Amino acid sequence: MSRGLFIGRFQPFHKGHLKAINDILKIEDEVIICVAASQYSYTISNPFSSGERIEMILRAMNESRNKLIILSSPNYESNSLWVENIIETFPKFDRVYSNNKLVKILWEKRGYEVSNIDFYKKEELNGTLIRKLISQGEDWEALVPIEVKKYIKGIKGEKRIKDILKIEEKLRDGTV
Amino acid sequence: MSRGLFIGRFQPFHKGHLKAINDILKIEDEVIICVAASQYSYTISNPFSSGERIEMILRAMNESRNKLIILSSPNYESNSLWVENIIETFPKFDRVYSNNKLVKILWEKRGYEVSNIDFYKKEELNGTLIRKLISQGEDWEALVPIEVKKYIKGIKGEKRIKDILKIEEKLRDGTV
Amino acid sequence: MSRGLFIGRFQPFHKGHLKAINDILKIEDEVIICVAASQYSYTISNPFSSGERIEMILRAMNESRNKLIILSSPNYESNSLWVENIIETFPKFDRVYSNNKLVKILWEKRGYEVSNIDFYKKEELNGTLIRKLISQGEDWEALVPIEVKKYIKGIKGEKRIKDILKIEEKLRDGTV
Amino acid sequence: MSRGLFIGRFQPFHKGHLKAINDILKIEDEVIICVAASQYSYTISNPFSSGERIEMILRAMNESRNKLIILSSPNYESNSLWVENIIETFPKFDRVYSNNKLVKILWEKRGYEVSNIDFYKKEELNGTLIRKLISQGEDWEALVPIEVKKYIKGIKGEKRIKDILKIEEKLRDGTV
Amino acid sequence: MSRGLFIGRFQPFHKGHLKAINDILKIEDEVIICVAASQYSYTISNPFSSGERIEMILRAMNESRNKLIILSSPNYESNSLWVENIIETFPKFDRVYSNNKLVKILWEKRGYEVSNIDFYKKEELNGTLIRKLISQGEDWEALVPIEVKKYIKGIKGEKRIKDILKIEEKLRDGTV
Amino acid sequence: MSRGLFIGRFQPFHKGHLKAINDILKIEDEVIICVAASQYSYTISNPFSSGERIEMILRAMNESRNKLIILSSPNYESNSLWVENIIETFPKFDRVYSNNKLVKILWEKRGYEVSNIDFYKKEELNGTLIRKLISQGEDWEALVPIEVKKYIKGIKGEKRIKDILKIEEKLRDGTV
Repeated sequence: MSRGLFIGRFQPFHKGHLKAINDILKIEDEVIICVAASQYSYTISNPFSSGERIEMILRAMNESRNKLIILSSPNYESNSLWVENIIETFPKFDRVYSNNKLVKILWEKRGYEVSNIDFYKKEELNGTLIRKLISQGEDWEALVPIEVKKYIKGIKGEKRIKDILKIEEKLRDGTV
Repeated sequence: MSRGLFIGRFQPFHKGHLKAINDILKIEDEVIICVAASQYSYTISNPFSSGERIEMILRAMNESRNKLIILSSPNYESNSLWVENIIETFPKFDRVYSNNKLVKILWEKRGYEVSNIDFYKKEELNGTLIRKLISQGEDWEALVPIEVKKYIKGIKGEKRIKDILKIEEKLRDGTV
Repeated sequence: MSRGLFIGRFQPFHKGHLKAINDILKIEDEVIICVAASQYSYTISNPFSSGERIEMILRAMNESRNKLIILSSPNYESNSLWVENIIETFPKFDRVYSNNKLVKILWEKRGYEVSNIDFYKKEELNGTLIRKLISQGEDWEALVPIEVKKYIKGIKGEKRIKDILKIEEKLRDGTV
Repeated sequence: MSRGLFIGRFQPFHKGHLKAINDILKIEDEVIICVAASQYSYTISNPFSSGERIEMILRAMNESRNKLIILSSPNYESNSLWVENIIETFPKFDRVYSNNKLVKILWEKRGYEVSNIDFYKKEELNGTLIRKLISQGEDWEALVPIEVKKYIKGIKGEKRIKDILKIEEKLRDGTV
Repeated sequence: MSRGLFIGRFQPFHKGHLKAINDILKIEDEVIICVAASQYSYTISNPFSSGERIEMILRAMNESRNKLIILSSPNYESNSLWVENIIETFPKFDRVYSNNKLVKILWEKRGYEVSNIDFYKKEELNGTLIRKLISQGEDWEALVPIEVKKYIKGIKGEKRIKDILKIEEKLRDGTV
Repeated sequence: MSRGLFIGRFQPFHKGHLKAINDILKIEDEVIICVAASQYSYTISNPFSSGERIEMILRAMNESRNKLIILSSPNYESNSLWVENIIETFPKFDRVYSNNKLVKILWEKRGYEVSNIDFYKKEELNGTLIRKLISQGEDWEALVPIEVKKYIKGIKGEKRIKDILKIEEKLRDGTV
């Protein structure tokens, strides 16, 4: 049995993530999904808690659940300890899937094989853009799986992202 | 859909845990299994890493996997922050299942309902006893699910537990 | 007996803070003042240590002291743990007073009532502006209570703010 | 104006603490009370949170409040950083009052004068004994100020201490 | 016997550092070299691990090694605890050598004498510039001791710096 | 060039350590000495700070200094992160020297060769015994290098160990 590790922040979980994981599942028997930066929530780059992000994945990938292991991992100041903490607290895996060059360097240094993944429609299916669209009141719903759209609306996630943006803008202006 | 939270250290995952989770699954649609004390491994009370403990659960409960959410959580010095970190980083749940009085107090204080669980054959199905039996070279295999037995033997877990015990005994003697 | 919680960084404690707390004292019997970001000092945004900030409040509000509980709280990477740590380590309070939208969201999520406060002359009575005036050698003294002015001058706080600014400017220039 | 620092865990705040602080107030203008080990609660040695311990002191010493500065401080693994964190986050003080030899050594090494305090009826007025009496259902009420007695009863502190004791006894027996 | 403390990040160790340490060795019998920000590696400002930075110093200053004590120290959120941690974990020293104004302020506040050092050719011998030259494929080799040049090339440090730069640029663009 | 890693707490540095390191220097070109548990000082098991322990080694092994790299490392709750932090923050080494079974297991798991060392007169040359002799006022001086003896007497280390012992005894008695 083979396992791949797929790392992301999933802010939010979008169709690019979904496609990538389904692609990996064609190669590996199981995928461990690592929800990174798990300590953050209610910030511009990380509006959703890791609990909420796990919920999105569970809902969007419910039918593949018996092939998935969804876990979370906090960011560390030390890149090496970040890698080691995942190795220590996650079940064993055979390969890491990532296009992020730093992730690639860090895991290869630690002796792991790192495979590229084709990111589908990368220009529009990326978290930074989706959060920006939400904050500006533009259409974003088609970029995420329908279950994620419903979930975000259910927890009033759009309002949350808009509110947080306003706060950080004020901080930059020095008016807070 | 209803969810229960079941917390344990699973050092190792034994038949009492298995029975308890299956009992909870008669009441709840899904169970979140929290592997506690996740930062520890290679100690007398916590010989197995949280990655290994998750692996045990995955193997022993493979057929129920689509009803399980297996996550881990480190111990905190502050009991309150320990509770809050689980709430923040886990998907939502409706009830906590535990017979541990402190767990009961801490979660009820935080506004959660805590239900008792019948621990099956508690005198023999408990982790402390199983680790003791392993360390003394006595029979322990029947107390854990067969997949856990195989897994522990595969990672040479018996030798690990014996080795760690010897080290800590020496430490107590002051001969290290 | 009722208690309000008022959260600020107080870099430095100014007349806007003083007015806000006095306004809250018209509604509540007591106010808990939380000196936030307590781990920082000698930085541009946080030039004064939490010990110094507590001293400013004690001096500026000496006559109301028996209605005040002044405590400090470090920033956490996790917003949720930041909230919980205050609940755990502070005496109980009934309401939170804040105009900061993020503070509002986080405390309401945790089940607290959050009341707005009228910030008096917000454009000039804000910490960012006061630190800027100090760093540029302009008039700032009228913006803080007289006891705070004396205290800052006594600990050579103006020189400290100017020195720190110069260091961070060099850092940005890459000449350090 | 002179200030003394008085350090304790206050589990619970008893008449010995009250007498000691009143004695210090005969020598110093103000006393800073440091609630140590602030991260712990719901353990045998630290049943009460630092928020609850601050509340006890506020209630027992309400009439002296304008001469008191009540703050809390977490334990650190490093004794030196524990000392430094108090210096950094507390207002300035002139002397430390303690009979604890380690406290004496650590603060004198850091350049502070440490004065002894006469602990009144030390054999019965000590926290370990009071917690033991509570856990065994014996008389303890006369050993603490009346406001503390009322407060502990109000938060059901006796039951809490008994419950926690039972848990830790089971842990030692290995029956958990 | 006298000892000076010299603090730097050494990203990388260059001829300016070498000259400064040799100058201090004319005044002091021994120099403690503190490799600061030791928890960071594989970032734009801190591409090299503290282990690698210690290796650079060992190789570049091999012949002076019996007069050097090379240690590392992590950054702390609290400036005061950063200072104290060095005092606690390093052997005693008599003076701190630094031109950094913040370092000067923090150590003088703690009672240490801080001496200026003449930084040789500061405009070109600084880490920020050297990392920039490396990232842009320009000449940098003459700015560091020959052993450091060889070492950086041996660990493929130029490629590492270029790779990391690309990642962070993408992060800023929001295309990751 | 080959390097060995030798790990110890050195509470205090004694003749057994000295002999072991000299033995390793017959096999390896250089030895990295790791002062473990570096965050502790002024406790029964760890009376000396890591700064003081480094000083002992420097003085006792002054003539071998150009073959030694003396560094310190804090204990971590996670054994895996403890190992990784040493790898990250220390220069590269080829082998680990230790008789401690846990150290052996942890480093071999991480892919390192671990060699045994003959501990000379292990029954009397061990830190626990030496601290016990000091605390009881018995002869201990012959068990450590003469420079260490002088250093410990110079910093009044015997009094420190006796004082700390008394405190911890009282803590156990519950009279503090």
